[in-house]
Amino acid sequence: MKGTSILLAAMAMPVIHAAKPKNYVFFLPDGYGPASETFARDYANFVDEATVKLPVDSFAIGQVRTKSSDSLVTDSAAAATAYACGIKTYNGAIGVDGNHLPCGTVLEAAKLNGYLTGLVVTSRITHASPAGFATHVYDRDMEAEIAEQLVGYSHPFGRVVDLMMGGGKCFFLPQSDENSCREDDVDLWSTAQKRYDWTMTSSREAFDNLHKGESGDLPFAFIPANSHMAYEADRDPQREPSLTEMAITALNLLDRKAKEHETGFFLFLEASRIDHAGHGHDPIAHLFDIIEYNRAMLAVKHWIDDHDDTALLSAADHECGGLTLGVPDYAWYPSVLARAEHTSEYYAAIYKDIVHFNSTEAQRESLIIDRVFGDYGIDNVTPKEIAGLVTANSAAIFLGDLLSARAGINWSTLGHSAVDTTLFGYGLNTEKLVGNFENIEVGHFIAAELGLKLKDVTEQLQANQNFVKLIQPNVKAKKLLKRFQLEHEHDIMQAHTRKH
Amino acid sequence: MKGTSILLAAMAMPVIHAAKPKNYVFFLPDGYGPASETFARDYANFVDEATVKLPVDSFAIGQVRTKSSDSLVTDSAAAATAYACGIKTYNGAIGVDGNHLPCGTVLEAAKLNGYLTGLVVTSRITHASPAGFATHVYDRDMEAEIAEQLVGYSHPFGRVVDLMMGGGKCFFLPQSDENSCREDDVDLWSTAQKRYDWTMTSSREAFDNLHKGESGDLPFAFIPANSHMAYEADRDPQREPSLTEMAITALNLLDRKAKEHETGFFLFLEASRIDHAGHGHDPIAHLFDIIEYNRAMLAVKHWIDDHDDTALLSAADHECGGLTLGVPDYAWYPSVLARAEHTSEYYAAIYKDIVHFNSTEAQRESLIIDRVFGDYGIDNVTPKEIAGLVTANSAAIFLGDLLSARAGINWSTLGHSAVDTTLFGYGLNTEKLVGNFENIEVGHFIAAELGLKLKDVTEQLQANQNFVKLIQPNVKAKKLLKRFQLEHEHDIMQAHTRKH
Ligand SMILES: [Zn+2]
Ligand SMILES: [Zn+2]
Repeated sequence: MKGTSILLAAMAMPVIHAAKPKNYVFFLPDGYGPASETFARDYANFVDEATVKLPVDSFAIGQVRTKSSDSLVTDSAAAATAYACGIKTYNGAIGVDGNHLPCGTVLEAAKLNGYLTGLVVTSRITHASPAGFATHVYDRDMEAEIAEQLVGYSHPFGRVVDLMMGGGKCFFLPQSDENSCREDDVDLWSTAQKRYDWTMTSSREAFDNLHKGESGDLPFAFIPANSHMAYEADRDPQREPSLTEMAITALNLLDRKAKEHETGFFLFLEASRIDHAGHGHDPIAHLFDIIEYNRAMLAVKHWIDDHDDTALLSAADHECGGLTLGVPDYAWYPSVLARAEHTSEYYAAIYKDIVHFNSTEAQRESLIIDRVFGDYGIDNVTPKEIAGLVTANSAAIFLGDLLSARAGINWSTLGHSAVDTTLFGYGLNTEKLVGNFENIEVGHFIAAELGLKLKDVTEQLQANQNFVKLIQPNVKAKKLLKRFQLEHEHDIMQAHTRKH
Repeated sequence: MKGTSILLAAMAMPVIHAAKPKNYVFFLPDGYGPASETFARDYANFVDEATVKLPVDSFAIGQVRTKSSDSLVTDSAAAATAYACGIKTYNGAIGVDGNHLPCGTVLEAAKLNGYLTGLVVTSRITHASPAGFATHVYDRDMEAEIAEQLVGYSHPFGRVVDLMMGGGKCFFLPQSDENSCREDDVDLWSTAQKRYDWTMTSSREAFDNLHKGESGDLPFAFIPANSHMAYEADRDPQREPSLTEMAITALNLLDRKAKEHETGFFLFLEASRIDHAGHGHDPIAHLFDIIEYNRAMLAVKHWIDDHDDTALLSAADHECGGLTLGVPDYAWYPSVLARAEHTSEYYAAIYKDIVHFNSTEAQRESLIIDRVFGDYGIDNVTPKEIAGLVTANSAAIFLGDLLSARAGINWSTLGHSAVDTTLFGYGLNTEKLVGNFENIEVGHFIAAELGLKLKDVTEQLQANQNFVKLIQPNVKAKKLLKRFQLEHEHDIMQAHTRKH
C-alpha cells in the first residue's frame, strides 16, 4: 500500500491548479506599434551587434485588436477604458460608456476588493491612459476633473489610488499659482495631503529615499513635472528618475505594503510618450522611450522572477505615426540617429530661442546651422532646408522628418493607425492569452485573474445618481478649461482627431 | 496489485509524447504585414457586422523577424531562402548563401528522405518564393534557370518537386513560342513530360478532374497562366481556380499518394500576390488576395482537423507597401472599396485601351470618366485627377492611390518594410513556436519536426563541384535573359531595391 500512496501522490502533480497571481501589472507602451519594435531592435543591433532581440521580444504572446466604438483608429482614452473596464467606447471617453455612464475599472475593482493600487506613467498623471483606469469623465481634456478624482476629492468611492508617479502637477495647483492649468481655486496639492492623507512630492530626493526603501507610506504621489515628464533622450537625471526606476520603486513599495496588509496589488505602468514621439515624427524621442520601455519591462521581469505571485501583461493602445523603415529603396542608416544627442522637440526649442536672439540675421543663421541642425546630427544642411525650418508650421516635426528621411524612416501619419498591437506576457497563466484578442478581452482576463467582478463595480458607480448626473456633458464643464500650454503636436492632433 | 496497475496506466497519460507530424504545410502570404490583417478584418466587418475576426486571427502564435544578411528590409528571395534553408543571405539570393554556394532546403531534404513535395502559388512558379524552396541561383531574375531546376532538368538531385501549381508557363516554352520568356530553344514543357514523367497542363478541366480526385499521378504540374495568375479580384473562374481550390486539391493528391507510398509530404503554399498589390498601392487587389489567403488558411485548418498528422505554419516574408489605415484624421470609408469591381491594375489596362481608341478626345475623356474612374468607384472625378492619370508614370498606382486616399488608406512606400510579420500555426507541436523568432528559426523548426538534416543536404549539394561552379555569377548567365514583359511595378521595384 505504501507504493500505491506514492503513486497517488505522483498522480496529483500533473493536475492543473487554478492558481491565480496575487499581484498584477499592466504595462502600456502608448503608441508602440509593431514597426516601433523592429526599429528599436535594429538600432540596438547597430550599437551592439550581439543584440539580436529586444527584451520584450521574448515576452510576445499575441496581438490586440484596438478599434474603438466609433472609429477603426482608437485614441488613448477609448483604449484605456477598453483595457480598464472591458468595454468598447468612443474616442475621448475616460471610464465612461457611449451614454457617458461610468464603468467600473480593474483598478477600482481591485481597490474595492482590498488590493493596493498604483499608476506610474511618464505623461501627465491626468492624461488619458492613467485616467481611464481610475476616473470617469466624458472628455479626456477635462484633466482638472481627472486630477480631482485621482486624489479622491470627487470620486464616488473616495480615494481609489494608493500610489501615483508621473507628471501633471499643474492640474493640482490653484489658478493663483503661476504654474497652474486650473480655472478655479481648488488647491488639490494641499487638499490631497490634508483631507486624503496623500504624501505629495515633486522632489527627486524624496523619490530616492523611497527608492532606497527608507521611507514611504501610502497614499504617495511623486509628481516631479508640471506637464509631461521628459522624453528619456532629454531627461535630466538630477530632476527626474527613469521609468525603470519608478517601476521598480513602485513594485517594491506596493509589495511591501501589500504584505503588511496581507493583500495584493494592481499596478498600471505606462511608457506614455512613445506615442507623443510618433505624433511628432521624432525618431530620437521614439527610439529612446522605446528602449526605456524595454529596460523597464526587463526590470519588471526580473522582479517577477523573485516574486512569482505577480503576473505581467503589456500591450500598446494603438500604433502612432505610421512608422515605416527602409524608405526609399530599403535604406536604413542607424548611424544618422546615433549622432543626435537629443530629440527634435529639444532642438526646436533651441531654434525658437535663437530666433529671438538680439543679433544679426547671419549670426542667427550660423547658430541655427550649428546648434540646431549640427547638434541634431544633420550636416551639410542646404539653404532650402534652413528656409524650410523657418516656414515650418512645427519646427519639431520639420526637424524630425528631416532626420528620419536621412535615416531611411518614413512616417505616414501625424496620428494613430489601426494596426493590431503586440501582446506581451510574463508570469502565471499569461500563456492563456496566446493569440489575437480584442483589447477588452485583456481587461476581462486581468479582472478574472484577480477575482474581480467589473460589472458589480459598474452597477455601484451607476447607482450613484449624483455622480452620474455630474459627469454628463450637458451638466458639467461647459466652461472651457484653461487651455494647457501645449508643448507638442500630440495634444493638437488628439483634439483634431477625436470624433464623438 | 490490480489497483496499482491501473494507476500506472493512468500515470502514463500526462507524459508528453515526442510525437511528430507526418506531413507539413508552410503557407507564405507574400507581403502580408500586420496592418494588412487589420485592413481585411475591418473590411470583412463592414460587409458583415458579425465578422469580428479573420480566420487567421485564431492561429496567431507569434512574430517573425525578417531582415536579410545585407538589408534591414528583406526581399522575397532572401526570405524564402531563410525559411527554406534556415540561413540568412543577401537580397536576391535563391537557395544560395553569401558566397553563392547552394544550401539544402526543407523541400529537398524532405524529398531525399522519401517525402512527397509540392509547390502551390499564385505568382509565376519560377518567382522568388517557390524558387527559394527548390532551386539554387545567385539572382532571382534567372527564372529560366529556375524553371529548368524545378522540372529536374538541371537540378543536381534531379527532380525534387512532385507537384507544382501556379503561373509562369512562359519560362517553360522555347523562344520560338510567341509566349516564351526564354532566350534559348529549351522546350521544358515537353522535356519535362518526356524525360521526367511530368504531366504538364494549363487546362482548368484537367485541374477540375484532379480536384474531383478522378485522376492525378505525380509528378503533376498545373500552370494555367503565362505569367502570374490573376489577382483574386480579377480572376476568371473559367480559366483559373482559386488558391483555396488549389491548396485543397494539392493536399488531397499529396495525401493520397503519400499513403500509397507509406510516407508523408511537405507542401509549400503561397498567397503570392498580396505583395504585388502592396507594391502597386492597389487596395482592391491587396484586400481580396488577403481574403483568399484567409479562406485558404481556413480550408487547410479544416483539412488538418480531418488529418491530424499534418501541421501548418504560416508567416509572411515581409510587409509590403507601408499600409496605414485611418489617414488623415482616423478616416476609414470601407464603402469606397466596396464600389470597386476590380483592381487598379485592371482599370489601368482599360485606360490604356481607351487612350488608343480612334475617337475624339472628348469621347475618350468621357469613356475614361465612365469606364475607368466610374467603374473603379471614383465618382465626381475632378479635371485635375483626370490630368493626373494622363501624366502618371503608372496609371495603376495613380488609380490605387486615389481610391486609397478616398478610403482613408495611406501607403508609405512602393517597396517592402522592415516590420516583423505575424506567425500563424495550427496542428501538432506548433504551439512550441509561441513568441518572436528569426525567419531562419522557422525553417529549422519545420526541418526538425520532419526529422530532416538540412546541413547534410547542403553538404551534398556543395560536394557537387560541377553544380557549384555552374551557379557562380562569374561563370553563368552573364547573358541577359529576355526581359519579361512586366505588367506591374513589383518587378521594377525589386530590380531597383535589391542590393548585392
Ligand atoms: Zn496619441
Ligand atoms: Zn515584393
